[in-house]
Amino acid sequence: MSWKANVRRVEPYIPGEQPGQKGIIKLNTNENPYPPPTAVTEAICRIRPEEYRLYPDPDAGALRQALAAYHGLGKGQVFVGVGSDDVLALAFLTFFQSGKPVFFPDITYSFYDVWANLYGICYETKPLREDFTIDPADYNGGSGGILFPNPNAPTGLLMELGEVEKIIRANPDVVVIVDEAYIDFGGEKESALSLLDGYDNLLVVRTFSKSRSLAGLRIGYALGSEALIGCLQDVKFSFNSYTMNLPSLRAGVASIQEDVYFRETLEKVIDTREWTKKELKKLGFECTDSRSNFLFARHKQIPAAELFEGLKKAGIYVRYFNRPRIDEYLRISIGTQEEMQALISCLQSRISGQN
Amino acid sequence: MSWKANVRRVEPYIPGEQPGQKGIIKLNTNENPYPPPTAVTEAICRIRPEEYRLYPDPDAGALRQALAAYHGLGKGQVFVGVGSDDVLALAFLTFFQSGKPVFFPDITYSFYDVWANLYGICYETKPLREDFTIDPADYNGGSGGILFPNPNAPTGLLMELGEVEKIIRANPDVVVIVDEAYIDFGGEKESALSLLDGYDNLLVVRTFSKSRSLAGLRIGYALGSEALIGCLQDVKFSFNSYTMNLPSLRAGVASIQEDVYFRETLEKVIDTREWTKKELKKLGFECTDSRSNFLFARHKQIPAAELFEGLKKAGIYVRYFNRPRIDEYLRISIGTQEEMQALISCLQSRISGQN
Repeated sequence: MSWKANVRRVEPYIPGEQPGQKGIIKLNTNENPYPPPTAVTEAICRIRPEEYRLYPDPDAGALRQALAAYHGLGKGQVFVGVGSDDVLALAFLTFFQSGKPVFFPDITYSFYDVWANLYGICYETKPLREDFTIDPADYNGGSGGILFPNPNAPTGLLMELGEVEKIIRANPDVVVIVDEAYIDFGGEKESALSLLDGYDNLLVVRTFSKSRSLAGLRIGYALGSEALIGCLQDVKFSFNSYTMNLPSLRAGVASIQEDVYFRETLEKVIDTREWTKKELKKLGFECTDSRSNFLFARHKQIPAAELFEGLKKAGIYVRYFNRPRIDEYLRISIGTQEEMQALISCLQSRISGQN
Repeated sequence: MSWKANVRRVEPYIPGEQPGQKGIIKLNTNENPYPPPTAVTEAICRIRPEEYRLYPDPDAGALRQALAAYHGLGKGQVFVGVGSDDVLALAFLTFFQSGKPVFFPDITYSFYDVWANLYGICYETKPLREDFTIDPADYNGGSGGILFPNPNAPTGLLMELGEVEKIIRANPDVVVIVDEAYIDFGGEKESALSLLDGYDNLLVVRTFSKSRSLAGLRIGYALGSEALIGCLQDVKFSFNSYTMNLPSLRAGVASIQEDVYFRETLEKVIDTREWTKKELKKLGFECTDSRSNFLFARHKQIPAAELFEGLKKAGIYVRYFNRPRIDEYLRISIGTQEEMQALISCLQSRISGQN
């Protein structure tokens, strides 16, 4: 026998490509096309060498305090981690120990089932309606926990707050996690944050990777009742005392303080999204009503896989999921206005060439 | 019933205190008293705002390549993570799936049993000999994996390479992990790295937090056969595509390139360690032969808990473990020469006051 017999068997996830070549238009991993404010790099540059020799503040006090103030909550209602993936995986481990299945949509962020499997948590997927919307009634009782993104990915569809509340109200005995990774791109009014006062079983998860242009730093956070956040803190500290490093802690605070710049870049992304959607329609595409920083689009005649490969050859990377129900669609991140014009031109020449 | 019934039960770990007040002499978490080279902060400052908007290189290619070149290995033999805690926890998850107990010493790094419990892996602790050394014969067969630090913590004792090899040679069917967090402080000749060519079941884990003065960045790594490292990569990517952030990736490379400075600071720490040990002996302490950046010391008359509290009141933080076999000891990190002089003076006045 060899040690190889005792290795964990896994199906490796294939992340969106990070091409090394210059000149690529990268619309495949939902990054923000605009840089973070210079205050972020300034904050990082101000860290003196002797500060790096010490372990970072395990309490992440300054960042949690800044986020609490920004959202009008107490510091005890904020948990931070190494990207929202880290926060969400920890929430699975912390809250979904009932033995009953966790419910989440069949078409959703592709890591939910992965974390369930990682921690031996059973789950049940609830099919989206034909139009890709979530039916709150599917989540009424019987679960060991509930999780969905709002807006959902990769559909981009935003659920109204009233619908979100139906799910939370119907399930007081389990933790309901609303993954708001994309909420800043026009969905703020439907954010579950306004429900935090009423429901101690609600956890809202957010990230700095999309709206805050800081994918390179890995910062995510969760907001909830003090009881809920206390559980996350306890479980986290039970097996890892430090994870966020000093640049992340400092940059996170700086990012929160630059609200004017933040809102300006969001506006630009939203404007470009709406422009791109209109242009795609002219070319024969159907798009969902995405309220995120990507579009989810299918062409009436040309298969998505073919368009995906064609764009890639032209140096434009988008995302294609070869999975049931969505294999006719492309997920296209919103780049700068110039990048999206290049995308549209490229599609124009391909599509007119086929007609 | 409430959601609280389904929360994971844990015993939170209490990390070494990170006091906020100025003027504290902090000898409780084995940090390096000397800052990292300025090349590290320069590398971090050179990162442009627009680089942060993108996800970091999931392959961590530049850092893995730099570490491979430094250790004379191939890039495929290097795995990197968010501190050696992250790397070690992942190694538990990846390699210890046989159902047989993992073996590690009874007195050792306090997170080994925590990660075993986290992932539902059974384990058996092997008592150190009376003099705190590891008996290789204890690890002969029957395990689902083996793990020990060299030097061990908190004893600081270094095992000879021949003894380390005995354990690896006797257990070709399981993965043997040597946690070399402290090896740079004078233990290099006994490092298991020289055994990598002969054993594909050997994983050596290291950290930038101690010898490289970068606890604030969270960088750890593992070296092993390509087969072993490939397994770690597969499991990691199966549930988390990105974890190390851009400052860590860049700073790690810069640190590796500053070898002269690195060796100078190591020499200073080692010299101060030996000086402190002599002074402690004069004051009636017994110390293990620590080859790390801390001393493990007990006083012949005065209980460790009493000394711990007294030092704390004087603003000097050391570590005390209220656990069987080691509750007479203090673990004292090596600070600057000035800090250690202050420690010795403080102990002198306390101890002479008692006689």
